[in-house]
Amino acid sequence: MRPGLKVYNSLSKEKEIFEPLNAPYVGMYVCGPTVYSNVHLGNVRTFMSFDVIYRYLKHLDFKVRYVRNITDVGHLQGDEDDGEDKISKRAKLENLEPMEIVQKYTNDFHDVMAMFNILPPDIEPSATGHIIEQIEMTRTLLEKGLAYEVDGSVYFDVEAYNKTNHYGKLSGRKLEDLISNTRELDGQDEKRNPVDFALWKKATKGHLMRWPSPWGDGFPGWHLECSVMSTKYLGANFDIHGGGMDLKFPHHECEIAQNHGATDEEGAKYWLHTNMLTVNGQKMSKSLGNSFLPSELIAGSHELLDKPYSPMTVRFFMLQSHYSSTLDFSNEALTAAQKGYTKLANGLKLIGELSYTEDGAEKNEKAIKQIEQICNNCYFAMNDDFNTALTIGHLFNLLKKINSIHTGNLKYSEIGEEVFDKMISTFKTFTVNVLGLVEEERINSKSVLNILTDLYKEAKDAKDYDKVDEIRAKLKDLGLVLKDMKTKVDWAYEE
Amino acid sequence: MRPGLKVYNSLSKEKEIFEPLNAPYVGMYVCGPTVYSNVHLGNVRTFMSFDVIYRYLKHLDFKVRYVRNITDVGHLQGDEDDGEDKISKRAKLENLEPMEIVQKYTNDFHDVMAMFNILPPDIEPSATGHIIEQIEMTRTLLEKGLAYEVDGSVYFDVEAYNKTNHYGKLSGRKLEDLISNTRELDGQDEKRNPVDFALWKKATKGHLMRWPSPWGDGFPGWHLECSVMSTKYLGANFDIHGGGMDLKFPHHECEIAQNHGATDEEGAKYWLHTNMLTVNGQKMSKSLGNSFLPSELIAGSHELLDKPYSPMTVRFFMLQSHYSSTLDFSNEALTAAQKGYTKLANGLKLIGELSYTEDGAEKNEKAIKQIEQICNNCYFAMNDDFNTALTIGHLFNLLKKINSIHTGNLKYSEIGEEVFDKMISTFKTFTVNVLGLVEEERINSKSVLNILTDLYKEAKDAKDYDKVDEIRAKLKDLGLVLKDMKTKVDWAYEE
Repeated sequence: MRPGLKVYNSLSKEKEIFEPLNAPYVGMYVCGPTVYSNVHLGNVRTFMSFDVIYRYLKHLDFKVRYVRNITDVGHLQGDEDDGEDKISKRAKLENLEPMEIVQKYTNDFHDVMAMFNILPPDIEPSATGHIIEQIEMTRTLLEKGLAYEVDGSVYFDVEAYNKTNHYGKLSGRKLEDLISNTRELDGQDEKRNPVDFALWKKATKGHLMRWPSPWGDGFPGWHLECSVMSTKYLGANFDIHGGGMDLKFPHHECEIAQNHGATDEEGAKYWLHTNMLTVNGQKMSKSLGNSFLPSELIAGSHELLDKPYSPMTVRFFMLQSHYSSTLDFSNEALTAAQKGYTKLANGLKLIGELSYTEDGAEKNEKAIKQIEQICNNCYFAMNDDFNTALTIGHLFNLLKKINSIHTGNLKYSEIGEEVFDKMISTFKTFTVNVLGLVEEERINSKSVLNILTDLYKEAKDAKDYDKVDEIRAKLKDLGLVLKDMKTKVDWAYEE
Repeated sequence: MRPGLKVYNSLSKEKEIFEPLNAPYVGMYVCGPTVYSNVHLGNVRTFMSFDVIYRYLKHLDFKVRYVRNITDVGHLQGDEDDGEDKISKRAKLENLEPMEIVQKYTNDFHDVMAMFNILPPDIEPSATGHIIEQIEMTRTLLEKGLAYEVDGSVYFDVEAYNKTNHYGKLSGRKLEDLISNTRELDGQDEKRNPVDFALWKKATKGHLMRWPSPWGDGFPGWHLECSVMSTKYLGANFDIHGGGMDLKFPHHECEIAQNHGATDEEGAKYWLHTNMLTVNGQKMSKSLGNSFLPSELIAGSHELLDKPYSPMTVRFFMLQSHYSSTLDFSNEALTAAQKGYTKLANGLKLIGELSYTEDGAEKNEKAIKQIEQICNNCYFAMNDDFNTALTIGHLFNLLKKINSIHTGNLKYSEIGEEVFDKMISTFKTFTVNVLGLVEEERINSKSVLNILTDLYKEAKDAKDYDKVDEIRAKLKDLGLVLKDMKTKVDWAYEE
């Protein structure tokens, strides 16, 4: 199926056939979180989208090296801001050292990723772990005349770069327009040009996160870490670079300029961008008060939420739209997703219980053809720029056939063992391995046990001692004992 | 309770009253894992021991900053070894890039820590994230005449240091003995003295993990990272330094020399060391074939294991001995621990169900005194160098009282609401918060559901339709539906 994969490349603005530079190896870099606060849902969507892309590429037998960074250097709001960076601000607010903030929110990030069954990347490098490499790339850009130093800070010289390159080619911007749009905003900037950006910033007195460098104590600019880490772990040319659409400009544009400027190579071949979240049709944002955290969604604890939604419901919900479309949160849509996910979960439970049995029925060529077509359709959908929404539709069609087998409307022998196996394995592979939708623990075992102790007590009251003994014995097999108290029946773990 | 805490200090070889340098703040540094293979059980014990220490200090209201590092720079077996480091070796073996090895085993490490309910530290810095700081400390030691450079490598000069200090004071060694024991083993070493150790090693051609430095491309020596990271995050003087006993020499001895050499300060005030594991009385080691991984212990998949042991059983088992004693694994001891943990788990379940009810019984001063004594004993035990074994004994005594309340042998009013609350909260706090023993999910909910569907089918066969309706309705309340198939009864999630 491999040759059929197409991806929409933000750089060419076209859907292209995916041809890795060095198949079967695939290098993929995705901009990770800045760890100064809890990860937000937009990030979750981005990382979930690339999780499915990662999973599908691996399913197609590519050897993927997936790098997703942790931005743990505090960055200023803009190069002009001489104040505190976000991580230091948060550190003062929470009365912690910056690296405690980093640890706290990195842990939170990992917990949230695990909750949504998002696989860890192969390498998760941090910005603070690559200060030397960032200093080295800055030095290279200085040597090549693409950067300049002013009073302990180093800036990328966009005009110099643009002489022989196109700064803005990803986001479709022209340097002239950028300059005319920004020049008047800026007065006493030490940059030669307002579009220039920091590679290295001098640390003012009291700035907490700082390292020695050839230009004095300072810290790297935000854009630089991704250029450095993608190059270090994937090479100067690699296959896929991903991130949220809001990073296209300036972040990814600056990355391209840095990579190409420093290495004379092209950097990433395919640029993939995920789209934004909306809530009831409005942009999700803190200032509008319609922004909830992943934890609030799961707990149902935000005023806009009618009830809690489980992680797999949310995962199903997010995969129901294409990663490049906006995704609108509403209680109606989430409730529908809950139903949809439950159907798949019942399917997963069911396929664990079905096993092929010859029943002598005649071959049903039409059913066989339908099943094979649906299995192929799953690949066609995923091959079309990872169309998870369409894939889910095909999985529902496959589930109908599986249910027919279960209810006996379709006999095992009508489709034969080979087609049966293919149907089951396609359903399982696409649901679990590719889409990452697993059967969630949804049964509160203590509640089920309470039903059993009720039935036990009723049997006892009715003097049905056979039933009493039966329940007691079956629970004992599970390592549980019933305790007859004066007014009630308790259970406990067998000691 | 705070003033009563005593800790055994490996440096003074005495049990000392714990007096933090800057109370209520406590800085604690523990040497973390080298991530080139799965974490072994000895490490788990060390990190679990310091987890309890961390938890207890926090319970005593100290503001603890707990730093535990990740050793992700590959190190050579010895300074003399010019070959590959362990991480690079493993990378070649597994056909991965060194940082993929680091990521893989860091993830495994975190998973194992979470499985045993070991809290993450406040800062988990990595060696590769502090190369600049390691270069800086090396430079300082050179400037102070405590190190020398030879052909791109820098070594710590132990004899120079020992002129005004005692190298070996932690492990009780004398430099003369160390020198006379090692000199003959060594011939063409570039070190001036065989006891000297590397601060920075020149990277030979083909060495994968390397960074530029004032002495050329290389990588830091193993001992250096801990000195650098403890100083960076806890200061030149801090309270507690912990690790396994096998790290006392040379690792911790070298750390002391580096810290004191570079800063002229004392470094850690209290040194705490955890003891080793044995299996059926023999030292646990790969070569003896008696070394099993945490995952093998949980799965019961090693030939020395009769059955699987749950994470909380293992945690209980480990906390049943003092951290400074050896700990012997045997099926008998683990089975006993399983029983012990189950008792505590039943206690945790029980206290969630009890609530104080005035029953008019007369005050029982003896029982009150006993309960208060047991509650105090928990503190006395933990204050005595974190004696978890003794604490568990006291918790069992407390549990007897709780069970008496449950069975009615002791009436609520005999002890009164205040003492009841104290008893419950002490049991809960010490079991869950201090020892980290939580109620484990041990019930397979699907197995319990199978019992219910059996009872349902039996009721149907017996035409007991009231019972049939009752079971159906109660399961529906839990979001589950029963499906009457031709030959059996299935359940599914309600869609």
